[in-house]
Amino acid sequence: MTANSPLRVTVWNENRHEQDPDHVCRQIYPEGMHGALAEHLAAQEGIEARIATLDEPEHGLSEAVLAETDVLTWWGHMAHEEVAEEVVDRVQRRVLDGMGLIVLHSAHLSKVFLRLLGTSGILRWRDVGERERLWVIEPGHPIVRGVGECIDLPQTEMYGERFDIPKPEAILFISHFEGGEVFRSGCTWQRGRGRIFYFRPGHETFPIYRNEQVLRVITNAVRWAAPVNPGRDEVRQIS
Amino acid sequence: MTANSPLRVTVWNENRHEQDPDHVCRQIYPEGMHGALAEHLAAQEGIEARIATLDEPEHGLSEAVLAETDVLTWWGHMAHEEVAEEVVDRVQRRVLDGMGLIVLHSAHLSKVFLRLLGTSGILRWRDVGERERLWVIEPGHPIVRGVGECIDLPQTEMYGERFDIPKPEAILFISHFEGGEVFRSGCTWQRGRGRIFYFRPGHETFPIYRNEQVLRVITNAVRWAAPVNPGRDEVRQIS
Amino acid sequence: MTANSPLRVTVWNENRHEQDPDHVCRQIYPEGMHGALAEHLAAQEGIEARIATLDEPEHGLSEAVLAETDVLTWWGHMAHEEVAEEVVDRVQRRVLDGMGLIVLHSAHLSKVFLRLLGTSGILRWRDVGERERLWVIEPGHPIVRGVGECIDLPQTEMYGERFDIPKPEAILFISHFEGGEVFRSGCTWQRGRGRIFYFRPGHETFPIYRNEQVLRVITNAVRWAAPVNPGRDEVRQIS
Amino acid sequence: MTANSPLRVTVWNENRHEQDPDHVCRQIYPEGMHGALAEHLAAQEGIEARIATLDEPEHGLSEAVLAETDVLTWWGHMAHEEVAEEVVDRVQRRVLDGMGLIVLHSAHLSKVFLRLLGTSGILRWRDVGERERLWVIEPGHPIVRGVGECIDLPQTEMYGERFDIPKPEAILFISHFEGGEVFRSGCTWQRGRGRIFYFRPGHETFPIYRNEQVLRVITNAVRWAAPVNPGRDEVRQIS
Repeated sequence: MTANSPLRVTVWNENRHEQDPDHVCRQIYPEGMHGALAEHLAAQEGIEARIATLDEPEHGLSEAVLAETDVLTWWGHMAHEEVAEEVVDRVQRRVLDGMGLIVLHSAHLSKVFLRLLGTSGILRWRDVGERERLWVIEPGHPIVRGVGECIDLPQTEMYGERFDIPKPEAILFISHFEGGEVFRSGCTWQRGRGRIFYFRPGHETFPIYRNEQVLRVITNAVRWAAPVNPGRDEVRQIS
Repeated sequence: MTANSPLRVTVWNENRHEQDPDHVCRQIYPEGMHGALAEHLAAQEGIEARIATLDEPEHGLSEAVLAETDVLTWWGHMAHEEVAEEVVDRVQRRVLDGMGLIVLHSAHLSKVFLRLLGTSGILRWRDVGERERLWVIEPGHPIVRGVGECIDLPQTEMYGERFDIPKPEAILFISHFEGGEVFRSGCTWQRGRGRIFYFRPGHETFPIYRNEQVLRVITNAVRWAAPVNPGRDEVRQIS
Repeated sequence: MTANSPLRVTVWNENRHEQDPDHVCRQIYPEGMHGALAEHLAAQEGIEARIATLDEPEHGLSEAVLAETDVLTWWGHMAHEEVAEEVVDRVQRRVLDGMGLIVLHSAHLSKVFLRLLGTSGILRWRDVGERERLWVIEPGHPIVRGVGECIDLPQTEMYGERFDIPKPEAILFISHFEGGEVFRSGCTWQRGRGRIFYFRPGHETFPIYRNEQVLRVITNAVRWAAPVNPGRDEVRQIS
Repeated sequence: MTANSPLRVTVWNENRHEQDPDHVCRQIYPEGMHGALAEHLAAQEGIEARIATLDEPEHGLSEAVLAETDVLTWWGHMAHEEVAEEVVDRVQRRVLDGMGLIVLHSAHLSKVFLRLLGTSGILRWRDVGERERLWVIEPGHPIVRGVGECIDLPQTEMYGERFDIPKPEAILFISHFEGGEVFRSGCTWQRGRGRIFYFRPGHETFPIYRNEQVLRVITNAVRWAAPVNPGRDEVRQIS
C-alpha cells in the first residue's frame, strides 16, 4: 500500500443467520451483516471493500485474496468450528506479516481471534435486549476520533466480565449494562507487524451496524489497522 | 525487610473531616479512617501499622518515619494543597527507591499520586449514595486473592470515566454504578522500584472501610506492594 | 496450594541431546538438563520438583501430573514437532486455570509457548560461543531479587532481535552480545490466571544451568509463577 | 488541525552549547541543533516548523505559541534547572490536552519529561565516542516506517540501563553499545490525550542530527504524535 493507493478491506462473515428465512437478521440486514459493513466502508474515501463468507471455497480467503487484503474484519457466531485450520493458519500468518484484523462481537470465540491471543475468550452473557453505554476511556486514540464521550445502544445482548483475554495494549471502551455488568468493549493488541482490534457491539438481532457511531468506530479502526512496514521475518542464522 | 521481619505500614490520613464535630465521618469512624485502617492492618499476621496525619510536623512523614516505612497508604480529600512540596518530594523519592504506595479514593487528586503519574487525575463524580459493583478483571492477581467475582457496595459516591491516569499496568477492578457510569477502580503502576495501587472505594460518609472485602483488598495490596530489592540508583559516569 | 504446602514444580525436558552418546551435553549434564534443574529446585525451601520428558507416555504430562503441578518449566529444541497437540491443549488449559509456566531458551519455538502467545517466536541466532551480558531492567521485580545489576555469561549461543513475541508485560533482562546484537532475555506475560516467564539462557553446549545467578533467576521465577486464585471460568449465560 | 491543515511543530532547544564559541557544536551545527531540526522538518510535506529557545521570554513558549503547536520537540542538557516551573506546568497541561512531545537525548533529565513520567530519568553514561547500533524492536510501528532493521551510529555518547522510566507502552529501539551496555532508545507513552516519544540519539558533539535515518525517525515521530481529538477534560459533578 502506498500513500495514495486505497486501503483494501475484506469483510468476512459466517453468514449463517442470514440464510435462515425466519431469522430477524434478514429483516435488519437484507444484504447480510457483511453487506451492510462492506457497503458502509466502500463509501468512505480511500477505502475499497470486498466480502468473503464461510460457505465459499476456502471460506473466500484464498492466499490470493489475503495477499490483496490490508485489513480483514471478522464476524462469526454459530459456526466457529467449521472454519478450517488451514485458513486460520493463513490468517494468522498474514496478521503477523502486517495485515490488520477487526474482530466483531461474537467472534470473541472465533478460531482466528483465539489463535492470535492464546486465551479462551470466554465471558458471561445475557440476551434480553438491555441498554448498553460504551464509555470512551482513551479519547486520544485514533479509533475513537469523533465519537464523543460515549455511545448509547438502546437494546443489546450483554457481555460481562471477566472476559478471558490477554491484557489489552489499549482499552478504548468500557461498557455499562443496565443489568449490572461491565465489559472491556474495545481492545487493541499487536501481533507481529499486525494490529488487532476487538469491538463488542454487533448482535445479529439488533440493528447495531446501522448505528452511526458504531460505524464510525469500525471505519476508524480499519484505517488504524492499515499495515505499516509489512513483511515477513524469518528465523535466520547470522554468521 | 528480611523474610521474617514484619511489614511496616504507615497509614496516612488528611484527618480533617474527622475533626469536624458535625461530620458523619465521626459517627462512622470514631477512631478516624486512619485509625480504622491501621487497626485492621495491625491485626494481620506479619504487619505492623502506624499512623501519620496532615497536621503533625512534616505531616508525620519525616525522613526517619519514611525510612522505616515499607508501604504507605494515603487518604486525602479537602486539603491536598496543604501538603508541602518537600514532603511530596520525599515520598516520591522513597517510592522510586522501593516503598509501596496505596492510594485511596479521593486521593486521586493528591499531590503524591499526581507527582508519580504525571496526569491530572480528573474524573466525573456524583454523590447520591448509589449502588456500586466492583467486578474483578484479573482473578490471577495477588491483590484480589480471596475476593470472589465482585464486591457489592450498597451506597457509594460515584466516580466515572474518563479518569485521567496513565494506562495502568494492571486493571484489577472495574466498577458499575447504578446511575450509568463505569470506572477503573483498582489500578497498578510501577515507578522506579516502587509499586503503586490505586483503589477507589472509601468515601468519608459511608462505612466503606468496615466492609470485609474492601479490607481484604487493602491488606492484599499492602503485602503486594512490599519492597523488592529496595535501593537507590544514581546517575553514574562509567569509565 | 495453601500457604504451608510446598510449591510443586514439574521440570519438563525434551531430553534428546542427552541421549546422544557423543553430545557434549552429556559431559555437562550427566543427569540431563532436567535432572540438574530439578535437583537445584528441590534443594530450595518449600519447593518439590519432579521431572517429565518427551519420550514418556503422554510426554509425562498426564492430566493427573498436571493437576498436581503448580509450575511447569519447559525446555525443548530439536523435537518441538513431536509434542502431541493433545498435550499442548492440556498445558494451555492448565495455564489459563492458573499454573505457572517457565519457558527456557530454545523453547521459544515450542508449541506450548507459541500457543499461548499467538506469534511465531522467530529470532536471529549465531552459535560461536560469544560473551553475553544480561542487564537487569526492572530491579523492583521479584524475579530479579538478589541478582545485582547484570549477569555475565562468558560463552553462549546468541539470540538477536527482532524476537517475534507480543509486547511483554514486563521486560526484566536485556542482553548485550559481543557480536553486536541485543535481546529481550527475560519477559513475562499473563494468560488467564496463569503467569508465564521466558528466560533466554540455557544452551545445551555450555554449562549455563550451573551458573548461580541463572539458577537464582529460575528459582525466583518459579516462586513468582505460583498460582493465585486458581480455577476455571466458564462461558455462562446469566439470567 | 484539520485533515488538510499543516502539522505545526515547535522545535525547542536550550541553545547553550551553541553559544559557546569554542564548542564543537558550533562547527557541526552552525544554525544550532534547533535550526538543523527545524529546517529538516519544515522541508517535509505538510509540516510547518518554528523554533523556540531557553533565553527567549517565557523560553519562547508563551500560551499563544503553545496554543498553535501540535507537536513540541525538546532538547536540553546543561540548563534543565533554568526552565521555569510555570512553563513546565504549561507544557504538561498542553500535552494532557493533546499536544505531542518528542524528547531528545539528554532531555531525559528535563523537567518537562520528568513531570510527565513521574520517575527520575537517571541512567549510566560514558562519553568516549563509541559505536552504537539501534535495533528495531517493533517493525510494525509508524515511527520506524522505512528505517530497516537497525540504525548504525559510528560515534556516540553511551547511555546505559537501568534507565529509570515507567514501563514504556512501546519500545521501538534497543541500542547496543560497543563498550558493553544496552539501552531502551525509543520509547512511547500516552499522558492524557497527548503522545510522548523519547529518542536517545543526539549528542551535541557528534553530527547525529545529520544522519538520515535519525531524521526519518524524528519526522515519523512528529507525524505519529499529532493530536487526535484534542480538548480539555474537567472535573465535573454529574447530577
